[in-house]
Amino acid sequence: MRVVALTGGIGGAKLALGLTRLLEPDELSFVVNTGDDFEHLGFHISPDVDTLTYTLAEEANPETGWGRRDETWHFMEALERFGGETWFRLGDRDLALHTFRRTRLDAGATLTQATREICGKLGIAHDVWPMSDDPVRTRVRTPDGALAFQHYFVRDRCAPAVTGFEFAGVETAAVNPELVTALQGPVRAVVICPSNPFVSVDPIVDIPGMRDLLRGTGAPVLAVSPIVGGQAIKGPTAKMMRELAIPATAEQVAAHYAGLITAFVLDERDAAAQPAIEALGLDTVVAQTVMVTLQDRVDLACAVLDFIDRLRADPRPAHG
Amino acid sequence: MRVVALTGGIGGAKLALGLTRLLEPDELSFVVNTGDDFEHLGFHISPDVDTLTYTLAEEANPETGWGRRDETWHFMEALERFGGETWFRLGDRDLALHTFRRTRLDAGATLTQATREICGKLGIAHDVWPMSDDPVRTRVRTPDGALAFQHYFVRDRCAPAVTGFEFAGVETAAVNPELVTALQGPVRAVVICPSNPFVSVDPIVDIPGMRDLLRGTGAPVLAVSPIVGGQAIKGPTAKMMRELAIPATAEQVAAHYAGLITAFVLDERDAAAQPAIEALGLDTVVAQTVMVTLQDRVDLACAVLDFIDRLRADPRPAHG
Repeated sequence: MRVVALTGGIGGAKLALGLTRLLEPDELSFVVNTGDDFEHLGFHISPDVDTLTYTLAEEANPETGWGRRDETWHFMEALERFGGETWFRLGDRDLALHTFRRTRLDAGATLTQATREICGKLGIAHDVWPMSDDPVRTRVRTPDGALAFQHYFVRDRCAPAVTGFEFAGVETAAVNPELVTALQGPVRAVVICPSNPFVSVDPIVDIPGMRDLLRGTGAPVLAVSPIVGGQAIKGPTAKMMRELAIPATAEQVAAHYAGLITAFVLDERDAAAQPAIEALGLDTVVAQTVMVTLQDRVDLACAVLDFIDRLRADPRPAHG
Repeated sequence: MRVVALTGGIGGAKLALGLTRLLEPDELSFVVNTGDDFEHLGFHISPDVDTLTYTLAEEANPETGWGRRDETWHFMEALERFGGETWFRLGDRDLALHTFRRTRLDAGATLTQATREICGKLGIAHDVWPMSDDPVRTRVRTPDGALAFQHYFVRDRCAPAVTGFEFAGVETAAVNPELVTALQGPVRAVVICPSNPFVSVDPIVDIPGMRDLLRGTGAPVLAVSPIVGGQAIKGPTAKMMRELAIPATAEQVAAHYAGLITAFVLDERDAAAQPAIEALGLDTVVAQTVMVTLQDRVDLACAVLDFIDRLRADPRPAHG
C-alpha cells in the first residue's frame, strides 16, 4: 500500500523528509510540482524537484531551505562580471546537478528519467516523480501583466500584487506515466504536503485527469494546511490570499481544495476552525504542523499516518 | 598598418601578450584556431580562444597556461559524484565564461560576436577573431581510428600515436568576415605565433581562401618556430613530428609552411639551421624564442617587429 505525496518546495519537502523516516520506498512516492521549472542560462532548472531531492539527501542548505549546504558562489561572482543574470542564485556545486540534468535531457531522457538518475546518485531510494514530463509554466498575474513564476518569486521577491495564476501548457500536459501506473495499484492515501495551494499544488492537480486519478483510488485524500494562525510558515501563500481577497485561514485552504480532498490536517493554533472545516464535509485532525527540527518533521508525518489509518479503519459515510 | 597574428593556445598566446604591449588595438588583431572547439556538457568550449583571452586579460593560470588563476573546482567535484564527464577540467569561475558564451550563442550571436563581448568584459582592447564562425573540428588520426581533438589532447593526454589530421567542416567554413575586411586594409605583416603547425595553425590556413587572403596582402608572412632544439616548448608538436616521421626541427616547421610564409624566426639554439631555412627561400632571423617571463614575451615581440620592419624596408626580390 502506497502513500502518494504531492509537494512543492521547502514547506512540503519538510513533511516529505519526515514521511521517508516512517515509510519504505515501496510505501511512499512523491509527485512534485514542475510549474516553476524554467530554462535559465541554458540549464533546465527544476526548483521544487531540486529542493525535495537535496532535502531527502540531507544536503539542503539548512539556512535557506533551497540549494546545497556547504555551497560556494564563485561561478556567480564571475558571471556577474560578464553581465550575466545573477538574480537566480546557482551555487558552484548545485551547478553540477543542473549540468548533469541538461546533458541527460539533451541525450533524450525525460525529466522523470533524469530525476531518477539524480536521486540514485544522491542516494534517495523513494520515487520522486515530476508531475509531468511535459512543460507546464506557472505565470503570476499582476496589475502590470503576467510574470514568469521565478521572475515573480525570486527576481521580484514576491513584491508584485497577485491577481491570479496561469499554468501555461497544463491543458496538454500528461500526468507522469509512473504515477498513473502507481495509482492503478493499492493506494493507502494521497497526501498534499503543506505547500502553496496556488502555485505548488494547483499546477499538479490541474493537469487533465489528475484529480480523477487521485480521487479514483478511493483512498483518503488529505491536505496539510500551509497556513498557521493566519501566516504562511514559508513563502507568499498568506500574502497571495490577502491580495486575492481570500482570508488567510486554514479554512480557506480547505475550501480551496473542495472536491479534491476528503480530509484536512490543521495546526493546533487553528483548532477553533475545526468545526467550520468539518462543515465542508471533511474529516479533520489537529496537529503540530510547524516543523523546525527533524523530530518535528517525523512527528507530523507520524500524525498524518495515524490519521490515515483512522480514516481507512472508519470511513465516514459522506466520503467513505 | 595592422599586424595580423595567427595563434593557437598557450605557446602562441605568450607572444600574443608580448605583441599587445607594443602595438595599439588598431595596429594588431588576432586570428585564433577554433579547430579544437567542442560541445561539452552543453557548453561551447573554445579552448584556444579562451586561453588567449585569459592570457591577454592577465587572468590565465600561470601554473597551467590554461584556465583562470585563483580557480576553484567545486563544480567538478560535485559533477564527479553525478558520474558526469570530468576529464576536461572546468573551474567554477571559468564556467561563467562558458555559460555566458552559450547564452549569447543560444540568442543567435556568432562566435565572433560572443568573443567580442567576452573580450569587452575582460578589458581586452585588441580584436580577437575566431578563424571562422562555422564549425571546424579537428580530428587526430591514430592507428585505432580518429579521435576528436580534445579526446586526444586532454582525455588521452596525447598518448595515441598520430598518423594524420582531419579538419571536419573546413571545406565549407568561411573565413571570419572581420578578418576579410581587415586584410583589405593596410597590413604590416602576418605573424604565425609559435603554435602547433598541425593542429593550431593548419586548421586556420586550410580554410578555403585563407592562404590567398594572407599572401594577397603583399605584406611579409612570418612564422615563429614552436620547435626549439628539437623540442616543443609546450604541447605535443615534437611528439607528433616524430610519429609522422618528420624530424622535429625548426627547418621542418619552416618547410611545413612552404608557400605560405616569406620569413621565419628561429631560436638561438637552432642558429645552425639558418642557412638551410634560407635555402627554402625564406628570410630569417635568430631570436630568443623561449618565453618564461613577461619580459621574454615583450622581447620576442620586439624582435619580431624589428624583423618585420627590416623585411618591409628591404624586401628581397624573391618575395618582395
